[in-house]
Formats: sequence, C-alpha cells, structure tokens
Amino acid sequence: MTNAIIGTWRMAGEGVQLVAPALAAGGSAADAVERGIMAVENNPANISVGYGALPNRDGVLEMDSAFMNGANFQIGAIAGARDIANPIRVSRRLSEERVNNVLVGRGAESFADACGFERKDMVTAKARAQYLARKAEVAAGARLTPYDGHDTVGMIALDNAGQMVAGTSTSGLFMKHAGRVGDSPLAGNGFYVDREVGGAVATGLGEDMMKRPLCFEIVDLMARGMAVQAAMNQAVYGFIDRLQARNGNVGEFSYVALDKDGNFGVASNVEFQFAVAVNGKAHLYVVTPLAGHELQINQEY
Amino acid sequence: MTNAIIGTWRMAGEGVQLVAPALAAGGSAADAVERGIMAVENNPANISVGYGALPNRDGVLEMDSAFMNGANFQIGAIAGARDIANPIRVSRRLSEERVNNVLVGRGAESFADACGFERKDMVTAKARAQYLARKAEVAAGARLTPYDGHDTVGMIALDNAGQMVAGTSTSGLFMKHAGRVGDSPLAGNGFYVDREVGGAVATGLGEDMMKRPLCFEIVDLMARGMAVQAAMNQAVYGFIDRLQARNGNVGEFSYVALDKDGNFGVASNVEFQFAVAVNGKAHLYVVTPLAGHELQINQEY
Repeated sequence: MTNAIIGTWRMAGEGVQLVAPALAAGGSAADAVERGIMAVENNPANISVGYGALPNRDGVLEMDSAFMNGANFQIGAIAGARDIANPIRVSRRLSEERVNNVLVGRGAESFADACGFERKDMVTAKARAQYLARKAEVAAGARLTPYDGHDTVGMIALDNAGQMVAGTSTSGLFMKHAGRVGDSPLAGNGFYVDREVGGAVATGLGEDMMKRPLCFEIVDLMARGMAVQAAMNQAVYGFIDRLQARNGNVGEFSYVALDKDGNFGVASNVEFQFAVAVNGKAHLYVVTPLAGHELQINQEY
Repeated sequence: MTNAIIGTWRMAGEGVQLVAPALAAGGSAADAVERGIMAVENNPANISVGYGALPNRDGVLEMDSAFMNGANFQIGAIAGARDIANPIRVSRRLSEERVNNVLVGRGAESFADACGFERKDMVTAKARAQYLARKAEVAAGARLTPYDGHDTVGMIALDNAGQMVAGTSTSGLFMKHAGRVGDSPLAGNGFYVDREVGGAVATGLGEDMMKRPLCFEIVDLMARGMAVQAAMNQAVYGFIDRLQARNGNVGEFSYVALDKDGNFGVASNVEFQFAVAVNGKAHLYVVTPLAGHELQINQEY
C-alpha cells in the first residue's frame, strides 16, 4: 500500500515532515492530519494559522477549522472560534458526533471546554503589535485589500489501510469583519475527501472559492475517471475563467489534491508552495503560475 | 419569457402566493426571494423559521440564512445570529459585498446593526413555553432525536429578465447545541444557483446534507445536459444509497430545483410539501416517498 500526506503552503512542510515517518510506519491518516496541522497551529511564526495568527479588525483572533473522514463522510468544523489552542483537534472530535457537527462562535468554545480541550490567548505580543500598526495605517487612510494574509493550512492524508482524511485550519483574512467565515470550514468548498476516490483542500480568497465547491468537483471528476491533475485543471481553471467573465474579478485560488493511489496534483493562480510526502519521503514544491494556466513547479527539498 | 418561484414546505406557499403576481408582472427574482422568505420569517406559526421559531438547548434562537445571485455567483450568508427580524434581508445585503460575505454570531449581528436592519426578540411566549416543556421532558429522561424540527424555507426564483436567485432561512434543529450550523447557509450544500443553468435548495438534516454538496451537483448535472428531475434523482438518491452503505444511517433529505426555463423537480426521502408558481399561478404539492425512490405527488391547490 502507498501512504501519503500533502499540505498547503510552506508552513505545511513542518507538519508533513513531522508526521510522515509515523504514517509510513502504519499510522492512521486521521492522526497524521491532526498532528500535522497541530504543528502548524502551534508555531507562532505562522501568521495565518493558530497561535500567533493575525487578528480581525477588532483585534480578536477568530479561527476556522474542519476535519473530514473519507470513509463515512463524517465532518466536524468550527468557525469564528476564539482562544482554542488547537482548532483541528476540536474539529476531529466534532466529526465523531451524530449531529451538531459544525459549531460557530461561543457554541464552539463551550463544546471545546466541555471536552477539555486547551484554551489559551492566541494573540501574541507580536501579532498585537502588527494589528495596531495596521490599524494606525488604516486610520491614516491606507486601503485594505482583500488579499492580505488569508493562508489556510489544509492537509489530506492516505494511510496504509487505505483510509483518507482531510483537514483545514486558519485565522482567515487579517483585519476581517468580526464573525467572517471563509471557505476553510465549508465542506465541498474548503475540503472534500472520499477514500474510494481521493481528496482536495483549498486556500485563497474564501469569498470567491465558495462560489463553486471546487474541492468536491475535483473529487467528483476523479470519480468519473479523470486523473488528479486533469480533474484539477478542468475544475479550477474552468471556474476561474467563468468567474472572471461573470463577476469581473477573481481572488486567489490554490488547491492541492491527492488520489487514493497516492498521486497528487496542484492548481493555483498565484505563487504557492506545497509539501508532500509519499511513503515517508517529504518534499517541498514551489509553484509559479505562467500564462495560459500553466504552472512552473520547482522542487526545493 | 417564463417566470417562476419554488419553495420548500407548506409554509413556502404563503410567500410564493404573495410574490408570484409581482414576479409575473416583471418583478425581479431577488425581490421575489427576499419578500417570499420574509413572509415566512414574519409568521410566528412557522416554528422553524424566523419569528416564533423554536430555540436551541439554551433557550436562545440562533438563525441561519443565505442568498445567492445566479448571475455573478455572489453569496451572502449569516449563521448563529440572534435577534435579527429578517435574516434573509441581511443575507441579500451581504451578497453585495466584495469580501466578508459570510458572517456568524456577534459579527452578523453587528453588521445588521450597522446597516440599520430591524432587531427584535424572536422568541415568542409560545416558543418559550414549548422549549420549557421539552427541557422538562429531557430532564425527565426523554431522548431527543436529531429529526425534531429542522425545516428550512428555501426558495429559487426565475424572473422575466432571465435572472435567477436562491435563498434560505431557518432556525435549525430545535434543541440544537449553541452555535450549531446546518446546511442552509452553506453554498453548494443548502443552495446553489447559476442563471445559465438553474438552481436547487435543500431542507432536512443539515449534518448529513453537507456530506455532499447536492444542490451544486444537481445544477452541475443539469449543466451537463440532464433534465431537472433526472439530475435530482441521480444526485440525491445516488448519495442517499451511498451514505447508507458508508455511514450506516441517513437523515431526512428534501430538495426542490428549478431550471432556467421554469421546469421544476423534487426529491425527498420523507413526506414533504413544496409550493411553486409558474407565470403567476401558485400550486402546492404534497410528496410521499414510495419504495424504490419513487414519489407520489398530489396537487393540493
């Protein structure tokens, strides 16, 4: 059997390198995704995920996360949740419930407390200083763009038993409106996985990425017989062109996908990196979009 | 040109009958969906939508809603929002923003305040009495099922200009966990519309309905050339069977869809009603599931 794990952005490399040996030694896809994403959440150098991430316009850090089981389609997710040390752990726990699988705001926090998950102040002194500096710039007339800081860590894993799992975690847009939710906790949009086919995860401008559930569509095209990269090209670039024509603008779209045999693919309209380990060997790839939806892909390690 | 509006459950009939004349006279699909759903939200007899709906397990009413523009795919949605008189109005307004289109909890409420939307205490004396009675039953050992009271009003409209819009509004599961969100505000799962193809809306057990974005899939199958009813049969019943096999149980699933030419369809695994008006003439249909995913459909008016 092949085992593999893939994740979005350079920061995912930390998690992928950490968990790839255990996955190669027979560990579960669920543990690989949970521990891989926890590593990214716990590192304050990652300014868009977990501890040390940049807050919303009120100076509050509100986090979104999801976990999906590719065997039975069970989903757990939280959104707009504060002071939870590891959102991905709460999402995994919620995916085991029969109902009430997606919880937002105070309800997510009370569930985390009831289950004994660690709560902590997630805004570091450095993040607060960056927030105050940006707030002053805005007060002085600087214009915020929707593209500032919205990197989600998403991972998909395939284990030696053939199980597949997907997970996401993010603090969303820096300076977002209180309560703003992007695509990361939304099934089909931010993630999707079916162990009989494969999975996909997304990162970019959630407001545009929820306009079509491309993670689901990638998996659906693979189920219809397309190879992973062909499925991604058709789904992602097809919609980017349609959205440009129909809405006049398109935000950042980046996707990685993994099929049930360990084949992987990437689609992006911006500079992007992703980490992947197949049978325990981790690599980082740097992706540069070229004309005509072509990508230049360089292996960094 | 054909104009049409379709909505879920008997309660949708109130809204459909109210707005069908204006739609037939050239009114917009957006106004039809907003006003049609507002009528359902404003009637306290509807115990799962808007004013008078049944609260969560803490006695608090938290509402979910969404609005989607089938021309440019713009989406607005709120979730876990309290004391907002007409959630559908806030969703429509949010669909006009470039970012921060989906807001949960306190953030949704502060946006509604900033825009001047009416706030009111949405829990009626009757709803509170029903909540207290159920709370006493639960304290005495009664078991809550996930099927108690989770009816979403969803509507899709097609106007004489060829524009299509979809909207949803619900209070979600009676006695749900604080912050619980179902499929209704989730694009692809609770609703989807593309004016060049058609649209679909959902009602049922959100936790199961978000396991595959069937509203999107219905529209996608229509885009590939399938008729509306055939698309619904393949997407909905195909997944119900797969979910039964893969997860061991399946909640309530009900969908209505409308194509760009005014043809409509229905799929459901429970007794269900829907209202529809084509070119101004409103009807209510009562749907009873039979063996083999067949439906018996009776016209009540």
